[in-house]
Amino acid sequence: MKNLVGACMFGQSGGPTSVINSSAAGVFTEALKQGNITAVYGAEHGIVGILNEKFFDISKEDPKEIELLKYTPSSALGSARYKLKDADVDDTDYKRILEVFEKYNIRYFFYNGGNDSMDTCNKVSKYLQSVGYECNVIGVPKTIDNDLFGTDHCPGYASAAKYIANTIMECYLDAKVYNFGQVCIIEIMGRNAGWLTAAAALAGYKGLGADLIYLPEVPFDTDKFVESVKSVCEKNDNKCIVAVSEGLKNAEGKYVAECTVSQNDTFGHAQLGGLAQILANVVKEKLGVKVRAIELSLMQRCGAHLASKTDVEEAFNAGAFAVRSAVEGETDKMVIFERSSDENGNYVCKNVLMPLELAANTEKKVPLEWITQDGSYVGDEFIEYALPLIQGDAKAPLEDGLPRFAQLKKVFANV
Amino acid sequence: MKNLVGACMFGQSGGPTSVINSSAAGVFTEALKQGNITAVYGAEHGIVGILNEKFFDISKEDPKEIELLKYTPSSALGSARYKLKDADVDDTDYKRILEVFEKYNIRYFFYNGGNDSMDTCNKVSKYLQSVGYECNVIGVPKTIDNDLFGTDHCPGYASAAKYIANTIMECYLDAKVYNFGQVCIIEIMGRNAGWLTAAAALAGYKGLGADLIYLPEVPFDTDKFVESVKSVCEKNDNKCIVAVSEGLKNAEGKYVAECTVSQNDTFGHAQLGGLAQILANVVKEKLGVKVRAIELSLMQRCGAHLASKTDVEEAFNAGAFAVRSAVEGETDKMVIFERSSDENGNYVCKNVLMPLELAANTEKKVPLEWITQDGSYVGDEFIEYALPLIQGDAKAPLEDGLPRFAQLKKVFANV
Repeated sequence: MKNLVGACMFGQSGGPTSVINSSAAGVFTEALKQGNITAVYGAEHGIVGILNEKFFDISKEDPKEIELLKYTPSSALGSARYKLKDADVDDTDYKRILEVFEKYNIRYFFYNGGNDSMDTCNKVSKYLQSVGYECNVIGVPKTIDNDLFGTDHCPGYASAAKYIANTIMECYLDAKVYNFGQVCIIEIMGRNAGWLTAAAALAGYKGLGADLIYLPEVPFDTDKFVESVKSVCEKNDNKCIVAVSEGLKNAEGKYVAECTVSQNDTFGHAQLGGLAQILANVVKEKLGVKVRAIELSLMQRCGAHLASKTDVEEAFNAGAFAVRSAVEGETDKMVIFERSSDENGNYVCKNVLMPLELAANTEKKVPLEWITQDGSYVGDEFIEYALPLIQGDAKAPLEDGLPRFAQLKKVFANV
Repeated sequence: MKNLVGACMFGQSGGPTSVINSSAAGVFTEALKQGNITAVYGAEHGIVGILNEKFFDISKEDPKEIELLKYTPSSALGSARYKLKDADVDDTDYKRILEVFEKYNIRYFFYNGGNDSMDTCNKVSKYLQSVGYECNVIGVPKTIDNDLFGTDHCPGYASAAKYIANTIMECYLDAKVYNFGQVCIIEIMGRNAGWLTAAAALAGYKGLGADLIYLPEVPFDTDKFVESVKSVCEKNDNKCIVAVSEGLKNAEGKYVAECTVSQNDTFGHAQLGGLAQILANVVKEKLGVKVRAIELSLMQRCGAHLASKTDVEEAFNAGAFAVRSAVEGETDKMVIFERSSDENGNYVCKNVLMPLELAANTEKKVPLEWITQDGSYVGDEFIEYALPLIQGDAKAPLEDGLPRFAQLKKVFANV
């Protein structure tokens, strides 16, 4: 562990969340305070900005705008989906990164993202070590999917979960308002992990939730699904709300969205539209009821107006902790969250470090024992897990009745 | 004008909004205070509840829950889509309504809804007059579509507009985050009026809006649309956000959603999914860019967590004003809003009465002169019109990190 003196580079990577900028605010606020950090840079579009030598001088930003980053969704610096090759296959990118780091004396590197981004961060860290370039590298977790290995939960997850729970409560009131029935199928993100879709159970905990919840952890059987919808409809005036994960797969491991063809289409065309629309067509055909498909789309990951205060603060703290740890000499690690409770039994979230290579490319899924036997709901273990994470509101101040998001000057450091 | 003594009946009708229950709170709060009103009833599922003799005794409700109605979306009493026949064609329903009104000595009738509901309210009012049954009838406006004739704006519109503007701002930040392009097509409600879709311009006013906005007031030309998207893409790294109204029609007056067939489908099947998905397919085929279709679906009309405080208060006041007016002897009228300004030039909204028959079944559209010549955006007149309406936040208190909506006991009056 070395106490280094030099500049720091921060990058944002992967899909947006409501609080990834809150981690940026944590990194910037802490880094600007540190005597050992001689300059604070923010890469435009993550690793791509480093390769292109395009990054902003954060010291030029108004502290008020850095504070507003806490409530500004998406990645203020721009994001990227760029996969580094293995260095032993092709080290071109790594040599370029080293060149840029040497030119600007980058001695601290913080990278904020999910599985793929931690893979990038890990590769850069290992390469710099292999060539003997001293740079403390810390990954800061981020993903609405909540599927990063090793951490109790991920910044960004709770705000998306809160958005989903709140929105389903409102849609419940709307979809059940008439004296006639309607089946409502709500499609939720999360790739191969059901954490986000499980958030529909939080709405159920408040009495206004989905009747059926399908996670990708359990193989999806379309016939069984139709039977379950039918059963709810029979008990409930044809009113039924279903939450489905975009990543549902059938018993053969194929995505349901890709292999389900509505029988209406006698030519066997795969129908367009997302999973919710496909399942809606199936239900309409088989049960003859009114069906509405809803996709929570981008809104669930960028709906910062419904962010969890707990999430916003934890994301900020994770960024600040990464900087303090690096300045104290830590490197090649990722920040993770450890859950415990205080003397009154209240939820406490502690920042800890974990070796970076453990985080890269491993998916953490919802435990199967949290899912009901028939695979159509989640148990109370999930409510206990998720409820502390969605507490409190935190949103941008209003200006003209609309949110006043951060407006960065984005002064290029190298011009 | 007669000062009547008797019970009052209130019903909610048509599609949900974020603030229709706020008008209910206004009616209930005011009616429960009035000495001339001997009982306050809330019909289950609007006019259907009256026909079925199913209505709740509102005096049994906790005042705290009536207060929470202000922040609870959808129609707490249940809604209906039931069209009364003309009384001179078939007066069965009217005789039944009269029978129920006589049985419970209903001398005040308040009906809350949009165009169709005002038609119902008008027909009931005229029938009761024709048979000499004394009952003061006042319609309370409601519609996210903002298309009711005679009023400056409608309760429910501003909250939906605020939801749309806020959501587009957030989606803008999300959809433009990468170093590669994406076209995002956002479908917005509003039937044949473009008021809601125009709200995308409020996001533009804050610098985070749609590049193109298409209202149903102007015939939609798919080829011209593709050209405009292409032009934005060329200037802007293939990044383009488009807001489209669900009610877009082509020059022949046909709904675009029904008559546009993606060329991919060589068998000429009309493709499933909403307008946004259909236009997304067209753009993808013609321009070869990444496209995402987003439907704001139920969320835009029930997203009470983003309600406008101005809207919540105006909806409440409209309900209370209806009751006071009826008690003072007014009948056969609908409440409308007149806009003016105070001595400091600040927006003021005044409640006024208008003959009911003027409101029934007439659609008010966005003035053509507010729409840009090429039909792909709206002018500053709209911003001036809409901005005062979306001011302030008003939402349900949090409980377990989620909204605590009203929970009515719903004690049937006739049991």
